[in-house]
Amino acid sequence: MKILLIGATGTIGKAVGEKLSNHEVVAANYKEGDVTVDLGSKSSVQTMLETVGKVDAIISTAGLAQFGPMAEQTDADYQLALDNKLMGQVNLVRLGKEYVNHGGSITLTSGMLSRQPLPGSASIAMVNGALESFARAAALEIENIRVNVVAPVFVKETMEMMGMDSSTGVSAADTAKTYTQALEGDMHGETLDVA
Amino acid sequence: MKILLIGATGTIGKAVGEKLSNHEVVAANYKEGDVTVDLGSKSSVQTMLETVGKVDAIISTAGLAQFGPMAEQTDADYQLALDNKLMGQVNLVRLGKEYVNHGGSITLTSGMLSRQPLPGSASIAMVNGALESFARAAALEIENIRVNVVAPVFVKETMEMMGMDSSTGVSAADTAKTYTQALEGDMHGETLDVA
Ligand SMILES: NC(=O)c1ccc[n+]([C@@H]2O[C@H](COP(=O)([O-])OP(=O)(O)OC[C@H]3O[C@@H](n4cnc5c(N)ncnc54)[C@H](OP(=O)(O)O)[C@@H]3O)[C@@H](O)[C@H]2O)c1
Ligand SMILES: NC(=O)c1ccc[n+]([C@@H]2O[C@H](COP(=O)([O-])OP(=O)(O)OC[C@H]3O[C@@H](n4cnc5c(N)ncnc54)[C@H](OP(=O)(O)O)[C@@H]3O)[C@@H](O)[C@H]2O)c1
Repeated sequence: MKILLIGATGTIGKAVGEKLSNHEVVAANYKEGDVTVDLGSKSSVQTMLETVGKVDAIISTAGLAQFGPMAEQTDADYQLALDNKLMGQVNLVRLGKEYVNHGGSITLTSGMLSRQPLPGSASIAMVNGALESFARAAALEIENIRVNVVAPVFVKETMEMMGMDSSTGVSAADTAKTYTQALEGDMHGETLDVA
Repeated sequence: MKILLIGATGTIGKAVGEKLSNHEVVAANYKEGDVTVDLGSKSSVQTMLETVGKVDAIISTAGLAQFGPMAEQTDADYQLALDNKLMGQVNLVRLGKEYVNHGGSITLTSGMLSRQPLPGSASIAMVNGALESFARAAALEIENIRVNVVAPVFVKETMEMMGMDSSTGVSAADTAKTYTQALEGDMHGETLDVA
């Protein structure tokens, strides 16, 4: 399969790319890659899709949103989450479905904070919940390709980078397995929790 | 109790107002009322709160979002849902919590489309899911007052206005009961489905 992977240099994206080594992966990132993209800009998403052309699957392991106490979260923090993690990925579906071959799939990334929040996650939980409900609803109107969301829990490598105890986390490699399930399965409109 | 009711002239809001006749209700609407407000503008929300002053509860039965086939939904439709129904109500919590007396509550409105979507509900389902996850996360950082969301199903009166068979709907009066449960109960961060 030809697979467009957005966020390929990230903690999760790198592990997903490794699991896809038997496929042709087109790596899209913000700074560098086979192609660059700013999820926060719809025209940049459109340009990336035109540059890459038809694919069999799109996987997004990108999407910015800012953790932080509600009392300190600014309008800009909410806007970043809405413009980038939420509408960036929503636009990836709205525009990207025309670039995925029949029988293919689009897989987005939310996060378990939508349903199991932590203090400091108000804007992230908000967009994660939005993504999960959007995919469920959008799937009702999208035929020929499947659209799903993967909801990772805290990734061990991320916890270690942040100096946290990583014993409750799931490794990036194990997290990546849920993306290959979304790629290879027949679910549509679903949120796949990383177990 | 002194209760600020936003969307008091609406199908659901009118029924909620009737259930609250033993309280002092301050009616806020877009066009007219004890006070007017545009949920789509954070400064308008702030002005409304300053005008009304301290209350025991805030109930929102407002929030614009546009139903329509995904193929026809424009960027503006998504933006309306995000600015008005989502961020209007999120800002009602961010700003409004300073105006609610200790022990009081804020109740927002989402809708069952977050979890039981229909074709044509992509942008509405998206913001409904966002509101439910936001409330769950925000509640972890909000003490002294409670924040909840009511998720109505199709209201009989709305279905009749739209020329639909209303036999599967719930009357506005029955829908309003869930808002009084949110007002009088002790739940916090929860989504109350209209049964
Ligand atoms: N890691 C976790 O513990 C965890 C848990 C739950 C959910 N998630 C979610 O999973 C996703 C990926 O997380 P991660 O930890 O793997 O992220 P990460 O390591 O920070 O990597 C982010 C990736 O996204 C790219 N990117 C950054 N800004 C972008 C933009 N504006 N447009 C397009 N791409 C952009 C980066 O490219 P450059 O390198 O070029 O900047 C990089 O490839 C996020 O949505 C996150 O919320 C992560
Ligand atoms: N009715 C249903 O079947 C149903 C089902 C599920 C969920 N819901 C949700 O429940 C909420 C209320 O629905 P409804 O059918 O009762 O609505 P509605 O009858 O259309 O009434 C809307 C109310 O909101 C006010 N409003 C309109 N624009 C506003 C703005 N920019 N800022 C502040 N207030 C504004 C209106 O004031 P003016 O009269 O002054 O314009 C009116 O009081 C909506 O969020 C809707 O999505 C409804």
